[in-house]
Amino acid sequence: MKIDYEKLRAEFKSPLYIYDFDDIKQRFLRLKEAFKARKSQLCYALKANSNLSLLKMLVNLDSGFDCVSINEVKRALRAGAKPYKIIFSGVAKTKDELKEALSLNILYINLESKAEMLCLEEVAKELNLKARISIRVNPNVDAKTHPYISTGLHENKFGVEINEAKAMYLYAKKSEFLEPVGVHFHIGSQLLDIKPIAEAATIVATLVKELKALDIELKFFDVGGGLGIDYEKAEEPNLYDYAQSILAALSGLDLTILLEPGRFLVARAGTLLCSVLYEKQTQYKRFVIVDAAMNDLLRPSLYNAYHKIELPYSKNLEPSKCDVVGGICESGDFFAKDRVLPKTKEGEIMLIKDAGAYGFSMSSNYNSRDKICELALENSKIRMIRKRQSFETQIQEEIEFLEE
Amino acid sequence: MKIDYEKLRAEFKSPLYIYDFDDIKQRFLRLKEAFKARKSQLCYALKANSNLSLLKMLVNLDSGFDCVSINEVKRALRAGAKPYKIIFSGVAKTKDELKEALSLNILYINLESKAEMLCLEEVAKELNLKARISIRVNPNVDAKTHPYISTGLHENKFGVEINEAKAMYLYAKKSEFLEPVGVHFHIGSQLLDIKPIAEAATIVATLVKELKALDIELKFFDVGGGLGIDYEKAEEPNLYDYAQSILAALSGLDLTILLEPGRFLVARAGTLLCSVLYEKQTQYKRFVIVDAAMNDLLRPSLYNAYHKIELPYSKNLEPSKCDVVGGICESGDFFAKDRVLPKTKEGEIMLIKDAGAYGFSMSSNYNSRDKICELALENSKIRMIRKRQSFETQIQEEIEFLEE
Repeated sequence: MKIDYEKLRAEFKSPLYIYDFDDIKQRFLRLKEAFKARKSQLCYALKANSNLSLLKMLVNLDSGFDCVSINEVKRALRAGAKPYKIIFSGVAKTKDELKEALSLNILYINLESKAEMLCLEEVAKELNLKARISIRVNPNVDAKTHPYISTGLHENKFGVEINEAKAMYLYAKKSEFLEPVGVHFHIGSQLLDIKPIAEAATIVATLVKELKALDIELKFFDVGGGLGIDYEKAEEPNLYDYAQSILAALSGLDLTILLEPGRFLVARAGTLLCSVLYEKQTQYKRFVIVDAAMNDLLRPSLYNAYHKIELPYSKNLEPSKCDVVGGICESGDFFAKDRVLPKTKEGEIMLIKDAGAYGFSMSSNYNSRDKICELALENSKIRMIRKRQSFETQIQEEIEFLEE
Repeated sequence: MKIDYEKLRAEFKSPLYIYDFDDIKQRFLRLKEAFKARKSQLCYALKANSNLSLLKMLVNLDSGFDCVSINEVKRALRAGAKPYKIIFSGVAKTKDELKEALSLNILYINLESKAEMLCLEEVAKELNLKARISIRVNPNVDAKTHPYISTGLHENKFGVEINEAKAMYLYAKKSEFLEPVGVHFHIGSQLLDIKPIAEAATIVATLVKELKALDIELKFFDVGGGLGIDYEKAEEPNLYDYAQSILAALSGLDLTILLEPGRFLVARAGTLLCSVLYEKQTQYKRFVIVDAAMNDLLRPSLYNAYHKIELPYSKNLEPSKCDVVGGICESGDFFAKDRVLPKTKEGEIMLIKDAGAYGFSMSSNYNSRDKICELALENSKIRMIRKRQSFETQIQEEIEFLEE
């Protein structure tokens, strides 16, 4: 469907996010299809984009949900998710969060450390129930073979070593208040090559077999997320190969595969629409100043991330290198550096592509800017799924203390 | 005053920000005092921390305000600021923002480009009034002499070259709808050495004299912000030297000095109080996991910024190197790396120091975490100045679209 961006802007104002729900659906179904040889459950990772209408659309596709805070659990429930399709992950779950998650009877809790397991056991004891758990293990896939994941299986805060996991499973098995039901691994974000995933799956499958021999029967094999998209090219990961590499590792085991796709489902579907405010040519550089900023999309500033930029109404005259920058008062507020773009006009619409994941979800009120509007495109129709924040709601937690 | 952090946490919950208003006041008065030989106006830069109660306290000290969005102008006004003490800066002011600022009759608008000046002129014409302006110039202080400001006077998006500024002033002078009243420069953030400021002030003062010869009489000499604090040491910039270097440059000129201090006033006064959730020892590294995260204080993740860390209730046993990390699901979520800290206990209070500037103001709802509470310490009393966000207010812009 060809979108009339001018009309959208006239109605909803610039800047705004727009998400192609049909694209997300289609990706969800393709990923599900790739694993059809086995029982599998896709648990969408809310941290990529937690808009309630997006979640509801995924609920209707029978998606599960991977949550990393109790608020994400609440979002999933509010959108209509069944508790038994929700898992709770993250390294810093508080006691209150664990208590609430147990009371809500979600599918299981992914544990990230022994200390957390002991805390959960205590909470389960208080509530007098048995907490279903999974343990996140670091399979420590050889970084020499796969240098691009060398950022630290050993050195990051997530998960536990295989041997520690084994000890934790044995402890949990004996506990009156813990029930080991799954194993979880996630070897990094933005993986475009499937070899390290295959290697990790094999290592973790071996652990599952060892546990079986110790009479610990797991039901869920949670392969995490990490399926990437290529921000510079249109290439997509081969889902068939991805699935086969995991399925191969599981031969002989009767496990439900859980997947936690986030970025893969929603990144490409999202566009940040903004407008050119000013062109500024200094003696040394050309700047295109737009009305969106790092508070709306932090990825370029934080990760030096690349996002494609389109000017759908451009006549493509006089292309030259420029920096595309926002209005936040720091040099680090930019969307592109040394990008070749045609000359723009004041008010011209600019599209920052592939912004559906870690875009709005990381947005802030920096420089007291209001959070922007979100739209969904579904069945050829566009509708609002989040209205622009107002100044009054921005100050609502402060204003009552002004009179003291 | 010795703060009872345990009591604070019991009452207001962890994590939270606490600001020492008395310290901010004392800094404000010291800075004002340093410039007493001249007419001067301190315009607090809201972007550092825009809490309304903080602004109100500054209004009572007769502070002015430097705003970089129309919402910051609204915040200043809501806190009781007089319009003639408000200036409006930033590279991406929209037409609507300019219109509103003009209607509010603020002191002046800092222009950052010729394109913006033409836009403002058009808006002023529509409103049939004369817009008071200042122009931000890049004095291009020699980066060879001062390598630490080499990040780009030439290459950043801010301000205009001296020659372009001159042409803009001449244009404005002739315009029916523009009135040049000031000149602005800001050569970088976090300056601890005053030499480049002195050099810049001299260059800009020369411009002022040249403009005078052209019959353009400016009233305001806006030296920007940029006065830093040392996050690793307790050292403070010498305010007397700072003031003298600027005052020296202005000899023979009758100008009101405007200053835009942000970080200098509020950074040291702020503390992020959080609690240890878990200690996690892997084979390779020790992690202290706390209940605050990068969504509460982004500076370490974004700038690799250093913040001192204190454990006020620690017995200082078994110190060793560790990473202090939050619960956000990314490796980049940390407050300190390889910091030597004693062994902590679950629930132990941790203070992340010097977090009053660019702390809360950059905070987000990433991972659907609620924005935290802010407290003020003033005249030995502690009071809330912002209540913790609730889940319901977090979803308030989305929930109505769920039923469609």
